[in-house]
Amino acid sequence: MSATEMVMETIRSESRLVDVAMRDDLERLAPEVDGLLLEILQYCLFNGGKRIRPLLVVLAARICGRCGPEIYRLARAFEYLHAATLMHDDVIDDADTRRGKPAVHIRFGTVAAILTGDFLHARSMAIVGSLAGTESLNVFSGAAGKMVDGEFLQMRNAACFNLSEEDYQQAILGKTGNLISAACEVGALWAEAGNKERAALRDYGIYLGCAFQMIDDLLDYQGDRGKTGKKVGNDLAEGKMTLPLILTVQHADRQDRDRLQAIVGDETGRRQGLEEVCGLIAKYDGFTMTRTRAEQMGALALAQLDIFPDETCAQEKAVMQGLVNFVLKREK
Amino acid sequence: MSATEMVMETIRSESRLVDVAMRDDLERLAPEVDGLLLEILQYCLFNGGKRIRPLLVVLAARICGRCGPEIYRLARAFEYLHAATLMHDDVIDDADTRRGKPAVHIRFGTVAAILTGDFLHARSMAIVGSLAGTESLNVFSGAAGKMVDGEFLQMRNAACFNLSEEDYQQAILGKTGNLISAACEVGALWAEAGNKERAALRDYGIYLGCAFQMIDDLLDYQGDRGKTGKKVGNDLAEGKMTLPLILTVQHADRQDRDRLQAIVGDETGRRQGLEEVCGLIAKYDGFTMTRTRAEQMGALALAQLDIFPDETCAQEKAVMQGLVNFVLKREK
Repeated sequence: MSATEMVMETIRSESRLVDVAMRDDLERLAPEVDGLLLEILQYCLFNGGKRIRPLLVVLAARICGRCGPEIYRLARAFEYLHAATLMHDDVIDDADTRRGKPAVHIRFGTVAAILTGDFLHARSMAIVGSLAGTESLNVFSGAAGKMVDGEFLQMRNAACFNLSEEDYQQAILGKTGNLISAACEVGALWAEAGNKERAALRDYGIYLGCAFQMIDDLLDYQGDRGKTGKKVGNDLAEGKMTLPLILTVQHADRQDRDRLQAIVGDETGRRQGLEEVCGLIAKYDGFTMTRTRAEQMGALALAQLDIFPDETCAQEKAVMQGLVNFVLKREK
Repeated sequence: MSATEMVMETIRSESRLVDVAMRDDLERLAPEVDGLLLEILQYCLFNGGKRIRPLLVVLAARICGRCGPEIYRLARAFEYLHAATLMHDDVIDDADTRRGKPAVHIRFGTVAAILTGDFLHARSMAIVGSLAGTESLNVFSGAAGKMVDGEFLQMRNAACFNLSEEDYQQAILGKTGNLISAACEVGALWAEAGNKERAALRDYGIYLGCAFQMIDDLLDYQGDRGKTGKKVGNDLAEGKMTLPLILTVQHADRQDRDRLQAIVGDETGRRQGLEEVCGLIAKYDGFTMTRTRAEQMGALALAQLDIFPDETCAQEKAVMQGLVNFVLKREK
């Protein structure tokens, strides 16, 4: 089995176990909650997600030397909070689809989407508090708070054509990096890891999350809709300044920069401007530079794993290394 | 000082201490979070709320024999979750105003209202988990989950003209009773109360919360806008079956019942139908019966306090008794 195959197989088998834990939970909830709420939970939780966040909880705990079936009950909280966030995000952005299916608010209405998000939010907090203790809850709810703060930052950034890489970095940290990092840190806390291991895993998560988001932002321009299930050009259509565009603006000559600003600043014209913007990004190597930045993040993530000894952690390390490559190479 | 004055003075002085704890928290948050988020937090948290839920945390802890400044830090979590719920509710109902001021989503936009609600939600969970432990967190997040479930129930009920009192009871428990009950129970847990005291306070909260909501539903028909800051007739306009209407439908003759059904079933005509509906409710004593039901709930709340000895808990008991009367007599 190649390294990639092993990673993929681990992702598949672990995500099945996470799914089992989530199905158990819904079964337990069934007699207590409204039928429609249950239907929406089924719909939003079992939609082909890759379960990266729960997987990281499991891997982080295991690389710190602890495993056991309880970890899947803890890990599902990260999928719950992630799903809650996506649901509210889709309401906010009025996105039509999610992973190729109608978004929850399209299928069940906005009211139901807001409420189901709140339900998952509360349940996720209770799970982390119960199974992993107060310090983990602080990390977890802190990440939830920072995600909100990141959205506010993004709203402010949307109006700003001359966004710096640092602002972008902070925004993607809020949006993606913090929760992925929290998954790793809570896994470490559950395993009662030392401070050094805890910090290394937290940083691994931060770098992995940032690499993930950078590739996401790249796929928003270059992705294949058949694979991603998403239209390309969403970020541009919303006037979002993401890394490919930011780097291009930094390197473009005056004439091209003015042209980009005119397109981005024109709410109705952005959709039609996609091809031209892609051409300009390519002209200034904006796509290549974005990929390079993501690879740098990936390298930083890998470096965090050095403190874990090969003798005892070989398999977990291999999967966590493989995950970095998976994130960098993903096409959806 | 009369009993009522003492209750009012306690509410005032305790709510000031809760406000201080909330301001401290916002000050601590200020350097970390987006300026707009902070502004919305200020706006939604300091808007003349009566702080009933935090007050109940404090009183429940004290009647169980524990006090200390930390209780205000814990208590504020209940105002946070309450504010988060109101904010999302106002988005859901597209309500224009809250306590006489523009609702958050009107003043700052829907996106900001959803996100700020999520932020407060996460923070409230972290506070309860940190300061009152896992069991309290389960009670608290359980109440949050049941509030969502109650909203789903209410959506289902909205379409149902022949709603039973039991359905109504369950809906108001979800909407109001559970969080008020959780405030009492978490106060007891923080004070390390025995099971008997804990159960009595939980039930006190349930009955008080139901009385509170019944009066709320009465004020929605009979309130003075100058006092409540709310338009009357909102529930009818939304087609919500609340207790005054439910009891009237049960007692009305065929002709009046058909007339009520015609009005409630006509989405555009409900607003104009308010006066006629009020007349029919009055004709069948629906308002008086609702008040009687609320008073019965109040009596059940009071009965829960019997287990607390007068010798050691006289003042707390008096305030908690007074609170029941305050809820029953409130005009806003």
